[in-house]
Amino acid sequence: MIKDASIEQFLETLASRSPTPGGGSVVAIMGAMGAALVAMVCHLTLGKVHYEAVSEEMEAVLLEVEALRSTLLNFIRADVEAFDAVMAAYSLPKATDEDKVKRSVAIQWALKGATRVPLDCAKASRRVIELSRLVAERGNTNVATDAGVAALTAFAALRSSALNVRVNTGSIKDSDFVRESLLELDRLMAGMDQETHSIYQLVLQKL
Amino acid sequence: MIKDASIEQFLETLASRSPTPGGGSVVAIMGAMGAALVAMVCHLTLGKVHYEAVSEEMEAVLLEVEALRSTLLNFIRADVEAFDAVMAAYSLPKATDEDKVKRSVAIQWALKGATRVPLDCAKASRRVIELSRLVAERGNTNVATDAGVAALTAFAALRSSALNVRVNTGSIKDSDFVRESLLELDRLMAGMDQETHSIYQLVLQKL
Repeated sequence: MIKDASIEQFLETLASRSPTPGGGSVVAIMGAMGAALVAMVCHLTLGKVHYEAVSEEMEAVLLEVEALRSTLLNFIRADVEAFDAVMAAYSLPKATDEDKVKRSVAIQWALKGATRVPLDCAKASRRVIELSRLVAERGNTNVATDAGVAALTAFAALRSSALNVRVNTGSIKDSDFVRESLLELDRLMAGMDQETHSIYQLVLQKL
Repeated sequence: MIKDASIEQFLETLASRSPTPGGGSVVAIMGAMGAALVAMVCHLTLGKVHYEAVSEEMEAVLLEVEALRSTLLNFIRADVEAFDAVMAAYSLPKATDEDKVKRSVAIQWALKGATRVPLDCAKASRRVIELSRLVAERGNTNVATDAGVAALTAFAALRSSALNVRVNTGSIKDSDFVRESLLELDRLMAGMDQETHSIYQLVLQKL
């Protein structure tokens, strides 16, 4: 499994001619790294003398962000599986009309799965950005840059997810599914460019 | 060494209360993932019938981006070492005036090292963005999203490097060094926000 591979091995496989792991796994890792940095800022705020007033809040953020990290880590594999399912569907036989129908149904089903994974990644990454703001504002100032890097990393994951959603919706025939997916994507992206920029500026002011 | 740790272990240590690995290592990994994705697009373009005209260019990009990936991978460790050197300098004795002078010199020296690493990361990440455009424009359209994710990932690395440079320059007394570092940073960041957005739009059009 990818999450058990060393970072060096993962990068080697990523760079290779094999299409998986690809951008989808990178997105999940970025989201998980963002979540991990938020968790680190929480840890380095809890128990510090000047931050007693925010300890309850930091405990709550830590709990939520650790769950997000675990979710995002699982998306590394989910993305590869979803991609492999699409490839498997495309390689089904297409000799007879019945074959063609079966193959088309399988492709459409797999494409929907491959759309769902980056949408879920986008949702988790958006939440990581929101939690980055909380720890950038109220967490230990000594690690404010890590809160900033968390937001920038999670925003890259969010924006990249949008590409991974759209590459699949382009081939999906169920127009209701496509419309709903793109609407959800728009909702998840809304305001996040400005929000990330605002967190970046906030961190710069704290340095 | 971090690059030998599994992705899951790395994320665990990143999330922990230990300040290293932190944002600096995340930046190096993001840059390296961006480089790896560019390499993957090159591999999946080379040898394909419709892309013979760009094969020489793809070979050149591949060679350069694989060197960048290796450089960025080494920055994971370099960042931790630079941070540890700063921490070690701060914990030097400060009992006598001579101690204080020695400690101050050591801190200043270590801070310069800790500024150099993210600057070098920023330089490599900027180049990854430039190479992402080449493969997004002329590489295999089937993996255009991966070229887009490469650009977004490398841009997050570039922007995050800026925070890691500034957190150190804030404590450096050598104003010439600070001015030159910030000038170099500005040069590296210049135009990259628009360029990344433009690559993102280009990829969206290809889907």
